[in-house]
Amino acid sequence: MIATNPVDVLQALIRCPSVTPHEGGALTALQQLLEPLGFEVSRVMARDEGTPDIENLYARLGTDGPHLMFAGHTDVVPVGNEAAWSHPPFAAEISEGMLYGRGAVDMKGGIACFIAALARLVEEKGAPKGSVSLLITGDEEGPAINGTTKLLDWAASRGEKWDACLVGEPTNPDQLGDMIKIGRRGSISGTVTVHGVQGHAAYPHLADNPVRGAIKLAESLMNPPFDHGTDNFQPSNLEVTSIDVGNAATNVIPASAVFKFNIRFNDTWSAEILQAEILRRLDAAAADTTLRPGREPIGYDIVWSERPSHVFLTRNNALIASLSDAIEKVVGASPQLSTTGGTSDARFIKDYCPVVEFGLVGQTMHMVDERVAVEDLETLTRIYRTFIEQWFANAVA
Amino acid sequence: MIATNPVDVLQALIRCPSVTPHEGGALTALQQLLEPLGFEVSRVMARDEGTPDIENLYARLGTDGPHLMFAGHTDVVPVGNEAAWSHPPFAAEISEGMLYGRGAVDMKGGIACFIAALARLVEEKGAPKGSVSLLITGDEEGPAINGTTKLLDWAASRGEKWDACLVGEPTNPDQLGDMIKIGRRGSISGTVTVHGVQGHAAYPHLADNPVRGAIKLAESLMNPPFDHGTDNFQPSNLEVTSIDVGNAATNVIPASAVFKFNIRFNDTWSAEILQAEILRRLDAAAADTTLRPGREPIGYDIVWSERPSHVFLTRNNALIASLSDAIEKVVGASPQLSTTGGTSDARFIKDYCPVVEFGLVGQTMHMVDERVAVEDLETLTRIYRTFIEQWFANAVA
Ligand SMILES: [Zn+2]
Ligand SMILES: [Zn+2]
Repeated sequence: MIATNPVDVLQALIRCPSVTPHEGGALTALQQLLEPLGFEVSRVMARDEGTPDIENLYARLGTDGPHLMFAGHTDVVPVGNEAAWSHPPFAAEISEGMLYGRGAVDMKGGIACFIAALARLVEEKGAPKGSVSLLITGDEEGPAINGTTKLLDWAASRGEKWDACLVGEPTNPDQLGDMIKIGRRGSISGTVTVHGVQGHAAYPHLADNPVRGAIKLAESLMNPPFDHGTDNFQPSNLEVTSIDVGNAATNVIPASAVFKFNIRFNDTWSAEILQAEILRRLDAAAADTTLRPGREPIGYDIVWSERPSHVFLTRNNALIASLSDAIEKVVGASPQLSTTGGTSDARFIKDYCPVVEFGLVGQTMHMVDERVAVEDLETLTRIYRTFIEQWFANAVA
Repeated sequence: MIATNPVDVLQALIRCPSVTPHEGGALTALQQLLEPLGFEVSRVMARDEGTPDIENLYARLGTDGPHLMFAGHTDVVPVGNEAAWSHPPFAAEISEGMLYGRGAVDMKGGIACFIAALARLVEEKGAPKGSVSLLITGDEEGPAINGTTKLLDWAASRGEKWDACLVGEPTNPDQLGDMIKIGRRGSISGTVTVHGVQGHAAYPHLADNPVRGAIKLAESLMNPPFDHGTDNFQPSNLEVTSIDVGNAATNVIPASAVFKFNIRFNDTWSAEILQAEILRRLDAAAADTTLRPGREPIGYDIVWSERPSHVFLTRNNALIASLSDAIEKVVGASPQLSTTGGTSDARFIKDYCPVVEFGLVGQTMHMVDERVAVEDLETLTRIYRTFIEQWFANAVA
């Protein structure tokens, strides 16, 4: 088929149960949709020790520049409590104008709309003057080790170069057209182990309660605020996501306490400078013995638990304007340019080309009864089509 | 045998492996030692739902007043890493003047010395003018539900009344004669569950991190101090003994956080007034929204996790003087009158008669290679004998 109807495409994709790390037929379905449009399709298997093998897909239409990439993922999160779904999660049933299914908005719907937009353009005006690529991973919802990063490496090593990228993740909080993401905060996680001296609760002077130390070190990371936000970003925010001691004996002072934290940080900081600031705060709190007279500084160690996600901000006005104008033309209002929310694979793509993100309304993502308005699929298809045309017009000009 | 040698008695007791809740032959051994001295011995089985049956012993010599009770326990804590012991824990071997074995100081040694002291007195001067009882439990190191409390109930219901009690627990920090315990702090434990709102770490405004609340409530219990101590007691002290969240996902704000605390409190407080003060502090911290603008007060609940141990102070000067003088006569220095340390079964006995505590040096109690100096056994026997004679002399006078 020539896939001009995003509803048909989305139904075909949802019916492939591609829960991470399973391909589930979703990439094969994509290949069958893209090849009739003229795409050259590559299936790219990625492997890494200790993680499941993941299949990814790269497809290019055209050979010359300018070169626009659309990035996304076909893997979906598990269905959760399947009995709680009002429509089966892989049936793609439509009811009262809503299309139900896991991945409907995150983000098989975005992929379906982009393919439909491109199919309409190819059908009506022929392929764009330049190239369009789809970089589609099966490992966005999982560890993301065998996904976008490896696929970018693979493509770049074959000489692929891109001028801009649109990521089709759901970016709109309430209504289609609300929000474009033009950057993302960075993210760093760490685990701090505070060492004390075990003992009996009746003899605290013979022990050193690590819970006191953990609270003190955790507080040093929560106050004062790291910054007050910047022109394009909200304030950096740190959350202590867990504290764990595991001491069941009420009369025993434990030997150690562990806490985990995650900070979402803005462009005040690089990851490295922020890590240094975190260590400075921890060291200062550990060394402050005003509340622990006669005690040694608090002993602790820290493990940074992930590769940091770096903060980024896209400053390519032509890219942002093409997307923003397309949205305004179709929905009648211009979107907010935002850097809020979690990380996305855009953090990897930004090292190759300017990147923006725009997709469906995210409200039901990862939830039971994930669903999308059929009307939104048509609207997003029209936005994407307008964007593609405007971007090529701007890029060639 | 007439048990005038505390070393023989202690070796016999250690060789009974009476790890809680097992009698291990220890009470039978006691019975065989006490009956030849003229004691009437009762073996008292105590039962309670959900706990193991425990055997206890009550023995009385004489029928008239004044009536002196000696209280203790034959149960011992587990041996721990048996391979780490330099002498087998139930062999009662003597090496370089030290007698090794589980219970050597806590507190089969104390029982052995008291029996030897009494045997010497009976042999040389006949039984004291009055009564001496031994109240010996097999459940001091365990849940203590089927131990001293039930045995006191049982004896009191048969009409037993006591004028004073000596508990033979190890009370000396360093040297035999260092310290008498004339009271004990109270102890209360609680578990606080702080309720938050689960969410994504990138969207903290949509969540409510219970770790912040838990830290705030825990701190309200740690500062300021509850008091600064009293004439006879050190300051009350609260330790947060555990905080637990159990959240493995670094990008998730958890739904709840739990912390446990234990407070050792002095005679500034009754248990009930202290519990009210703890609730007042928690409520005040929960309601303080200065650091949480626009938020609801912190939601929490609390479970008091044990029957509180009530604080007590013994003010019977004759009892304290009899013991203190006996120690000074034997070792040449008067002991410190202390209320430090953990709780003991004295907290139950104090409802029936004045109680003091004095025994061996506690340094190796509950440890691998628990041991007692053979010389200390002889010294404590002489102290106990002098104490018995003085107490009866004072009580009759
Ligand atoms: Zn997604
Ligand atoms: Zn004991």
